[in-house]
Amino acid sequence: MIKPRTPAGVLELLPREQIVFQRMLDGIRATFESFGFLPVETPVFELSDVLLTKTGGETERQVYFAQSTGALEKQEAGMPEMALRFDLTVPLARYVAEHEHDLAFPFRRYQMQRVYRGERAQRGRFREFYQCDIDVIGKDALSPRYDAEIPAIIHAVFEKLAIGEFTIQFNHRKLLRGFFEGLGIEGERQDLVLRELDKLDKRGEDAVRATLMEEGFELSADTADRLLAFSRVRSTGHADALAKLDALGAGTPQFEEGRQALRDTLGQLQAMGIPESRYAINLSIARGLDYYTGIVYETMLDAHPQIGSICSGGRYEDLASHYTKSKLPGVGISIGLSRLFWQLREAGALAMTAGGVDVLVALLDDDGFADALALSQRLRTAGWKVETQMEARKIAKQFQYADKAGIRVVVLRGENERGNDQVTLKDLRNGEQQTVALEQLEPALHAILGSGK
Amino acid sequence: MIKPRTPAGVLELLPREQIVFQRMLDGIRATFESFGFLPVETPVFELSDVLLTKTGGETERQVYFAQSTGALEKQEAGMPEMALRFDLTVPLARYVAEHEHDLAFPFRRYQMQRVYRGERAQRGRFREFYQCDIDVIGKDALSPRYDAEIPAIIHAVFEKLAIGEFTIQFNHRKLLRGFFEGLGIEGERQDLVLRELDKLDKRGEDAVRATLMEEGFELSADTADRLLAFSRVRSTGHADALAKLDALGAGTPQFEEGRQALRDTLGQLQAMGIPESRYAINLSIARGLDYYTGIVYETMLDAHPQIGSICSGGRYEDLASHYTKSKLPGVGISIGLSRLFWQLREAGALAMTAGGVDVLVALLDDDGFADALALSQRLRTAGWKVETQMEARKIAKQFQYADKAGIRVVVLRGENERGNDQVTLKDLRNGEQQTVALEQLEPALHAILGSGK
Repeated sequence: MIKPRTPAGVLELLPREQIVFQRMLDGIRATFESFGFLPVETPVFELSDVLLTKTGGETERQVYFAQSTGALEKQEAGMPEMALRFDLTVPLARYVAEHEHDLAFPFRRYQMQRVYRGERAQRGRFREFYQCDIDVIGKDALSPRYDAEIPAIIHAVFEKLAIGEFTIQFNHRKLLRGFFEGLGIEGERQDLVLRELDKLDKRGEDAVRATLMEEGFELSADTADRLLAFSRVRSTGHADALAKLDALGAGTPQFEEGRQALRDTLGQLQAMGIPESRYAINLSIARGLDYYTGIVYETMLDAHPQIGSICSGGRYEDLASHYTKSKLPGVGISIGLSRLFWQLREAGALAMTAGGVDVLVALLDDDGFADALALSQRLRTAGWKVETQMEARKIAKQFQYADKAGIRVVVLRGENERGNDQVTLKDLRNGEQQTVALEQLEPALHAILGSGK
Repeated sequence: MIKPRTPAGVLELLPREQIVFQRMLDGIRATFESFGFLPVETPVFELSDVLLTKTGGETERQVYFAQSTGALEKQEAGMPEMALRFDLTVPLARYVAEHEHDLAFPFRRYQMQRVYRGERAQRGRFREFYQCDIDVIGKDALSPRYDAEIPAIIHAVFEKLAIGEFTIQFNHRKLLRGFFEGLGIEGERQDLVLRELDKLDKRGEDAVRATLMEEGFELSADTADRLLAFSRVRSTGHADALAKLDALGAGTPQFEEGRQALRDTLGQLQAMGIPESRYAINLSIARGLDYYTGIVYETMLDAHPQIGSICSGGRYEDLASHYTKSKLPGVGISIGLSRLFWQLREAGALAMTAGGVDVLVALLDDDGFADALALSQRLRTAGWKVETQMEARKIAKQFQYADKAGIRVVVLRGENERGNDQVTLKDLRNGEQQTVALEQLEPALHAILGSGK
């Protein structure tokens, strides 16, 4: 006998949780589709030389390789032939480069699949987790207006998920780099400062300020203070965002370009009818990756700031330079759904009451079996999720099973009901039982279950 | 520059194909749920000692192992710690055994995920493919009535997928083994004969007959002929199925048990209103696996017999004996969706016209940008999938893009339309263009697109 267990670092759910997770996946997908994004799925494994174009780095240390039994047996030195995807961005780059001539640009794709990283085992850190990504990829160029569409999509997603109030925050790399320029911080030092400011949430202002004045940075106390003051800028409401941008004073051409881009984004969000409480500028957002070149986004749950950003992304210059000579600029976001689900569950912020099955058609006596089957089919045709009790058992046992399985309503027809063209419904949530004429079954069920089929 | 490409043996789709595939997945899932099945997803990798409880065999030769970079570096002799699932049945066994006390039995689960097998590279053979499985698992016992529910579910699935006429065929292991008994074939010889009969489709009657009379079998010509005559029994319609079962003559107790089970199944299908053209008995169905102990199913597309069975399964005695002492009998089926999709596509039997995006809101001049954004949001709220043209370009270019992207309708408001509270719609399928009052937009769109949101 072998102990049944999963590897460390995976999130396996019980059915009642999986139903909630699936509903979140469905909601995200429906929203992505409503904005005209097209589905892509890629294989879980890619050829190692294709996936790992960039050598070294933390990501590569975390890659999982896949090997068939045969390959394992005759394994030679070096890297196995295939590796599991560690994000959805590299597969997207490979996909767009490979299928470039079959795609219409700007190419709007969504992808919702699991990715794999050999993270150190730790509570809430997963080695297998869902990412839900969208990207808009242009050929040669992509209008900055797409940058401003993204927060509208984030807004629609989290309205749909209904997991509480949230704020979409954004900043602009050109505003940041322009500000650095203005302070005389140039070249590689900009990247160092960017990465340091990205740690503000984790390390706190004092620690970051001290580091900025140390070796490698050597900024003056005054410069460090200005950087910190800049990164403290956060807006409350639409007019305040514009006012705070105005109040930053004049800057370098790059700075002004970033500022104008943020103003345009704000205007576009207003034109799309996004409530002003849902978005804000936050000049502390840096996003560690060098990758981003324009707007950068983070999304916070107002009631759960400790969770950190639940949806992040930004604008990049060139998606697939490793695979094609075509220039493919883009903008995109990613939702790490497994982690979000886990954290909301930990915080008690997910209602797990969603029943997967609407109705159990009970069976009181074997003479009623054909009737129960026909009744079940009738309710399925009407759109409900229906399980049939296959063996006549004590009705108390059947109620008990339905309750444990999370089924909301039990429908039954004993000899009496069958003789009188009637049917009995029991609502397990409040225990109420009613007997109605058979043709009244659907309206009666509808009254209990609502339209939430 | 690295050539962007996927590993051999994977099925990667273009967006217009992925939309069709996703619609099939959605249809299967909705049907499984309508019969009260609950969702389960398991990790792509399992611990190798858990996954590979049965030693040896063809399956194990095809297993993929997963290793992190760290594990690869310090790899010792022997099996890597983790392996990719090669079906959904072993993960289900592990899941049910692991979570036994949190589940309500009979446990009805569906699972639709990809599985991995190191198959030899060959057209239409995939190393990564979707399986869509349902199983009903009982604790200690499971009524045979669940066996008869399964064909009703298969029926509902393929009605929903609308990929053509199909026939669900079934046989019963007890009928088969009882018939062997009657011919004096006992013990292990039954398994050999079962496996040989399973090859009838591939090898043909003459070759199988010859083998049955060879060493290892040593059946008489008469016995071989009777086996072949038995395996030729196929019914057409409900009454014919019953008559053909009656015509088999008396048999051993096991034979009679199998015959009665098939009669019960036929009766139950009739009670569920399944059209009799959709099901038949086919006594040649053996299903190679020793695993099955009762009813066995196969499903054929009437117009594409060369595809073989598109949905197969059966009843088994004990799901998880490797992981738990609890006896867990069950019945289930599996649809190999990637292979089915590929074969239907090869046969030209899939309409790829399903557009992912309903509407492109065009942009004629920058003054109309805010209006186009608001219009797009309005149509999304009404339930359509809408993309917004972000930059004013020649309208011909916009039509061209919409056409290439598979978008059905272009909606536009130039200066004239904006001045007159009007809007213009162009149906790209027939080129028809109309200008209507703005408040008539939704009804006009509905007339073109129908309710297929």
